[in-house]
Amino acid sequence: VRISAGMGEDGALRPEAVERALDVVEVFAHFCRASRMDDVRTVATSAIRDAANREAFLARAREVSRLEIEVLSRQTEAFYGYVAAVNSTTLSDGLVLDLGGGSLQLVRVGARRLREAGSWPLGSVRTTERFLPDEKASKKQMRALREHARERLAGGGWAGEHVVGIGGTVRNLAVAAQKAAELPEFGVQGYRLTAEALADLVERLAALPASQRGAVPGVKPERGDLILAGAIVVQAALESAGAAALEVTEAGLREGIFLTTLLDGDPPLIPDVRGASVRNLAREYGHDDAHARHVAALSLSLFDQLAAAGLHPGDDEERELLWAAALLHDIGDTVDYDDHHKHSRYLILNAGLPGFSPREVALIALMARYHRKGSPSGGFLRPWLRRGDEALVTRCAALLRVAEQLERSRDQVVREVRAAADDEAVTLTLMADEDVAAPRWGALRQRDVFARAFARQLEVA
Amino acid sequence: VRISAGMGEDGALRPEAVERALDVVEVFAHFCRASRMDDVRTVATSAIRDAANREAFLARAREVSRLEIEVLSRQTEAFYGYVAAVNSTTLSDGLVLDLGGGSLQLVRVGARRLREAGSWPLGSVRTTERFLPDEKASKKQMRALREHARERLAGGGWAGEHVVGIGGTVRNLAVAAQKAAELPEFGVQGYRLTAEALADLVERLAALPASQRGAVPGVKPERGDLILAGAIVVQAALESAGAAALEVTEAGLREGIFLTTLLDGDPPLIPDVRGASVRNLAREYGHDDAHARHVAALSLSLFDQLAAAGLHPGDDEERELLWAAALLHDIGDTVDYDDHHKHSRYLILNAGLPGFSPREVALIALMARYHRKGSPSGGFLRPWLRRGDEALVTRCAALLRVAEQLERSRDQVVREVRAAADDEAVTLTLMADEDVAAPRWGALRQRDVFARAFARQLEVA
Repeated sequence: VRISAGMGEDGALRPEAVERALDVVEVFAHFCRASRMDDVRTVATSAIRDAANREAFLARAREVSRLEIEVLSRQTEAFYGYVAAVNSTTLSDGLVLDLGGGSLQLVRVGARRLREAGSWPLGSVRTTERFLPDEKASKKQMRALREHARERLAGGGWAGEHVVGIGGTVRNLAVAAQKAAELPEFGVQGYRLTAEALADLVERLAALPASQRGAVPGVKPERGDLILAGAIVVQAALESAGAAALEVTEAGLREGIFLTTLLDGDPPLIPDVRGASVRNLAREYGHDDAHARHVAALSLSLFDQLAAAGLHPGDDEERELLWAAALLHDIGDTVDYDDHHKHSRYLILNAGLPGFSPREVALIALMARYHRKGSPSGGFLRPWLRRGDEALVTRCAALLRVAEQLERSRDQVVREVRAAADDEAVTLTLMADEDVAAPRWGALRQRDVFARAFARQLEVA
Repeated sequence: VRISAGMGEDGALRPEAVERALDVVEVFAHFCRASRMDDVRTVATSAIRDAANREAFLARAREVSRLEIEVLSRQTEAFYGYVAAVNSTTLSDGLVLDLGGGSLQLVRVGARRLREAGSWPLGSVRTTERFLPDEKASKKQMRALREHARERLAGGGWAGEHVVGIGGTVRNLAVAAQKAAELPEFGVQGYRLTAEALADLVERLAALPASQRGAVPGVKPERGDLILAGAIVVQAALESAGAAALEVTEAGLREGIFLTTLLDGDPPLIPDVRGASVRNLAREYGHDDAHARHVAALSLSLFDQLAAAGLHPGDDEERELLWAAALLHDIGDTVDYDDHHKHSRYLILNAGLPGFSPREVALIALMARYHRKGSPSGGFLRPWLRRGDEALVTRCAALLRVAEQLERSRDQVVREVRAAADDEAVTLTLMADEDVAAPRWGALRQRDVFARAFARQLEVA
């Protein structure tokens, strides 16, 4: 609703902006009551916190909404941003960057703790009004903004290689960069926006009049007039931090508040963000069960034994991705049993797995896709992959398929599997108390993909 | 498992086939116990029913599975196929065609009741062995099969314009025809396989040696050797029925048994298959609720009022599709709130809506997709659409968007809407007991799409 629009020297919210805001507060209040939410936390941030007529506004908003409204202090607002960032990424030491309309906030993080928070009047509305107020942005104006931001941020030691960005401007820049690079889209969670990609974007945006910047793919029309100044401030912040890229998270203030309310602990920290993401998604679709866990156990056991036998590198990250794919391989059966492997791919890509990069999410989705049928490949996700990733997918999909076949009866009848390798073949020995003819037959049907992955004939004893 | 493979003159199942079958019965029995299913109906059909050693096989299968096994009579098997067909399509008067390995079964249906069932020894295994046993199928051999099938089916009055096909051969033929026509795939439920498309397929298959027919896109490799004979028998059956096409359903024996067990009534009939499909899908995702129903009511009210004002044809089928899209528009938020309109499209396409044709499913999916954001169009689903369908989608999406905005607060604050039209504008009057500034503002934001759909300016009083 752009509640701070048109604010003058008096620092008071304009009547039209207040009415717009109250209309929307009323819709949300109706929504909460209709949805029978009885634990609602309503917060106000900088625009309202700093307004001269804040108390008058809050009184009316409380009346309209029948909700308590908490005005967050600058420190509390920064804290929630920090909570969102450290619980949706693997950030341990570095910075959280939050660019709003009024200010840029940075939080220094050490060992996942908030060390220090700072705020600068470098928000996108403010810098646009002061430095880039015209349809055309001249080189001189842009240079002035860049130098101003650098000066403000200089000193104070706000350095860090790992910078996590939150907020709408950052998300828009990430979407625009993904589109420019023609990457298949499934959100921007975990995307690394590099300094080079950001520089290219600034160049493209600066070449357009302000009124047309909202038409750049990925930039929201209503943000078009603010996006260039925002991009330049982010550039300056990355430079001053000495960081080569900004890791984007889709979590923000709202998720910070939610997690703080949900979790115990001060600060509220999810111990293992990646593991929690995977288990959370598996649970959401009812698949963190004995079958999925046993497929994971069998897959990882094969992975470790074949690595020990020298048949593949045994990379730790790859192992973790295989575990994730094993736990999630069947979630697509929520949509339909037919093609459920493809539906698993869709859900993994689109539900999001905080803590993983888009490339890693693509790899997990591909492994789940190829846990049955088809010949493993990158397909439409290839633009996200690195050299060697298709071989990685083939390897993990082959193990997942064998494990899935050994566990087709879903009752862990094959308790354990031992693998012995020579130059020609890998021989699996199945440990079970009952007849396992069908699991054996199913595993042997994965011979072709196994041979492609490990250059060995699969045999099952 | 091809249990009847290699059966000789003695009519007994071969030992290897029996072992294969028992292994698989065992896996399924494990599966059922592990999944804690305590109401399992296990049935045996023609291959076992007709086998000389059936009792010996059944005794061992019962022992291995610890399940009761029901041997279905030919009449009961036909009945279940009929139940599947009439409850997954809109078939009221016509035929159900079921092509198996051993026989072709036809059921005559009148007013949704089973009138008569017939069976002919024209199954795909049997006719392949007798008429097309070689790698190459000669014209003469094909003609002989075609004439044989025609003669067998002649007389008896097995005619009907509406023929519904079930079984694996029919589904494979449908997938192959869809691929040949380059139609985007989301299953074959409700697909009309025309006699022309079938003739083209027969021609393509006949040009290939039997061992390569399984490589035709859509044909399963393990069915490659049987598909040509099956296709020719289906052709002959359509000809003899006087039908121009075969409507395919994905439901079969299994669904027939499930529905007979689930439903009361003799025969077990879902009163309104299309309505039930839509409500079932909405419920599966928790969305057959007050909000979705109110959006449907408001959309249909606008649809009717604008039709009465002469602004669109007011077609009954279009009205039903709009209702379906309104009930389903939000189901995608199960996947993620972000882009939930796109997730709704995915779920509608892939979950299936028995009773609707693929074109209709595509239209519902597109309306749901465009209930927010973007400019309505056919997109990748265009190959399924007819002339005028993109205008239809635009029209229904525009109404759905207005209704959604009026119901943004999800508490039915806008009880009712009245529409008045003249040559320039459509003016909506909102009936509500409270302030509706935000719904009004939201509806007015749909001006552009509304103008595109109805060539009228949208106004809201």
